[in-house]
Amino acid sequence: MKGSAEIICVGSELLLGDIVNTNAQFLAQELAQLGISHYYQTVVGDNPLRIQRAVAIACERSRLLLFTGGLGPTPDDLTHETLADFFDAPLAERPAVIADIQQKYERRGRTMAASNRKQALLPQGADVLPNPAGSAPGIIWEPRPGLVLMTFPGVPKEMHVMWQTTAVPYLQDEGWAADPIYSRTLKFWGIGESDLAEQVNHLFNRDNPTVAPYASQGTVKLRISARAASEAAAIALIEPVADEILKLAPGPYYGSDDDTLASVVGDRLRQTGQTLAVAESCTGGGLGHMLTAVAGSSAYFMGGIISYDNAVKIGLLGVSPSVLDTLGAVSAPVAEQMATGVRARLGTDWGVGITGVAGPGGGTAEKPVGLVYIGIAGPEGQVSSQAYRFGNLRGRDWIRHLSCCSALDLLRRSL
Amino acid sequence: MKGSAEIICVGSELLLGDIVNTNAQFLAQELAQLGISHYYQTVVGDNPLRIQRAVAIACERSRLLLFTGGLGPTPDDLTHETLADFFDAPLAERPAVIADIQQKYERRGRTMAASNRKQALLPQGADVLPNPAGSAPGIIWEPRPGLVLMTFPGVPKEMHVMWQTTAVPYLQDEGWAADPIYSRTLKFWGIGESDLAEQVNHLFNRDNPTVAPYASQGTVKLRISARAASEAAAIALIEPVADEILKLAPGPYYGSDDDTLASVVGDRLRQTGQTLAVAESCTGGGLGHMLTAVAGSSAYFMGGIISYDNAVKIGLLGVSPSVLDTLGAVSAPVAEQMATGVRARLGTDWGVGITGVAGPGGGTAEKPVGLVYIGIAGPEGQVSSQAYRFGNLRGRDWIRHLSCCSALDLLRRSL
Repeated sequence: MKGSAEIICVGSELLLGDIVNTNAQFLAQELAQLGISHYYQTVVGDNPLRIQRAVAIACERSRLLLFTGGLGPTPDDLTHETLADFFDAPLAERPAVIADIQQKYERRGRTMAASNRKQALLPQGADVLPNPAGSAPGIIWEPRPGLVLMTFPGVPKEMHVMWQTTAVPYLQDEGWAADPIYSRTLKFWGIGESDLAEQVNHLFNRDNPTVAPYASQGTVKLRISARAASEAAAIALIEPVADEILKLAPGPYYGSDDDTLASVVGDRLRQTGQTLAVAESCTGGGLGHMLTAVAGSSAYFMGGIISYDNAVKIGLLGVSPSVLDTLGAVSAPVAEQMATGVRARLGTDWGVGITGVAGPGGGTAEKPVGLVYIGIAGPEGQVSSQAYRFGNLRGRDWIRHLSCCSALDLLRRSL
Repeated sequence: MKGSAEIICVGSELLLGDIVNTNAQFLAQELAQLGISHYYQTVVGDNPLRIQRAVAIACERSRLLLFTGGLGPTPDDLTHETLADFFDAPLAERPAVIADIQQKYERRGRTMAASNRKQALLPQGADVLPNPAGSAPGIIWEPRPGLVLMTFPGVPKEMHVMWQTTAVPYLQDEGWAADPIYSRTLKFWGIGESDLAEQVNHLFNRDNPTVAPYASQGTVKLRISARAASEAAAIALIEPVADEILKLAPGPYYGSDDDTLASVVGDRLRQTGQTLAVAESCTGGGLGHMLTAVAGSSAYFMGGIISYDNAVKIGLLGVSPSVLDTLGAVSAPVAEQMATGVRARLGTDWGVGITGVAGPGGGTAEKPVGLVYIGIAGPEGQVSSQAYRFGNLRGRDWIRHLSCCSALDLLRRSL
């Protein structure tokens, strides 16, 4: 290990609170994975003097400075200019970068703006850190012996791909990374973080591998991380712990690492050669959108009907008007009829129906905001449904998100 | 204004990337609202020496230091201890704080743990910043003339209520707050950040109001911010600049502040009493999901058909099998037939059809990944379509996102 890293995020929008600093979190996680120590993060605005002051401080206490932001084409994008100034290096226009930006614009049928030329002005002596996902490249630069700077755009997607494709191999090759950390993340749906944590509490004080709980978007995750010289050695450490956890919470576990509820459902459908269609009311297409986020989903997902209006439920899905009248659109029979209706209409093995009160209006004492019914119709003609009460604490988007994920989870358990 | 603020977030979980720093964003927004300048944010781990180093730096450049984190009962919660040490003040146990914590535990039928006593040890001379939502209080402390420290727990809910109930009144009473900043954000679709920036370049060097560009999720934003004693005075500063910008880029402008493409489309449909249905292939329901993210969208959005499979395009939307055979599913006629088909099927005024190659597979030289056709069918029977080439730089999710937004934008311009 050569020394510790520091993350410096440049952008007045961070100081104004316009955006939350997910870039710092991403880089922090990645540094931990690589075993690179990191003790400070700094946020500074688009101001050359203050950027220089932050750099001066960081040089004194850290050896690897990771910058995000300030690489865009507008006049307030100042990171490269300011770094060149601080380290007394002239800026030089890189013809290869200009050509690359031009090509990217042309591929989209557009012309490069004159202001984009600025993005090709990089400090002399710095290597280009290519940006395959956008116009602004970053740099990898050692302006003083033992001090390495890397710059990334503030756009998370661009930053992520630049990090993975260029920065990580560089850091590994140049000896910045310690024994790497390998990890496996187990993912659970339908169990609370504290409930899961209580069941596996005795594993949290382990040293190698460590076990740490996270929750995001309703999925609860347990990350098992092992530090080891090889991946095989790490797996040997991780496996027994993973097995023990899965014995404790077998039902809610749905997958690992890059698995999503939609990809797991898709894998099972593909294995059995079965097909799926969806009927969505309150989610308005969100379930179909999640399912089709998986590349290759056309192998098992035929499509669906967004029956936002009751007339569509009746006309296209064959939901009974009298059931709609007597029980209302948000009811178990309607969810089931939507599921059977879309299954029949699209000729699939499986059908899913979602109907609920997403709010903020439309709730009653009997059917409050957050009440959602999900129906599942299967290949043998079997139909079932389940009621969910998501409450109204976190709003419409959250209720819709939980509805889609719960439908996938219910389907997963039915397949 | 007495001076500028600095946010110092203490917690090793931030350095490990286990959580995203929403506390910094909250405080940043609040400071902007109060008109208190704020130029730096620092994140540091639960380490006394590094906390002290961060404080030493902050004292030199800022006058109001806002700390979050490190107030809990566990041994790694060190903020108050470290600050007392740095400013050479003894820690003193506050009996009133102990009594308050005891009472809170009793109300929940629990007994205060011995470790909670630590939370009542505060630097001598500091005022208690009460925590109505949890056990750990913060402090308001002027350890040196003109230098004020405030500490908050890391738990966002506790921090927020402490900020609102005690910190904000204190800052206003003590003259820290300046004229507040009011801002209006103009939102644009279908124009690049650099292209828009070039058109309004002469406005970027203004002082009050300021104009700053941002881009997120394909939307380009210009934020006009005015510092003024009243909202009316701020509006008087903002309006002429907004008018000038809108004269320069009238087409791509779609709304301000909380407007979304979907809400703007919805507003227009509601005004004219017209209805809408969607037919989605590569977006799989994403457009419907965006439209129904708007509360009250049932007034104009009837639903749609997710025609992922060609059989659904033919069977439910009436797309011509021979056109599918000869031109393929990703073609202008299919997009148009999907739009007219769903309009007819659901009996709406407007219909939208989306078909494209979202990738990563399925692209050809003639129809590359990122090629998307959007069809619009209108109330007079008029039909049109547009081809988009989004390229393959940023992947499947991004192509699908751009497709949905472009469909909304095309519809907005058609309404």
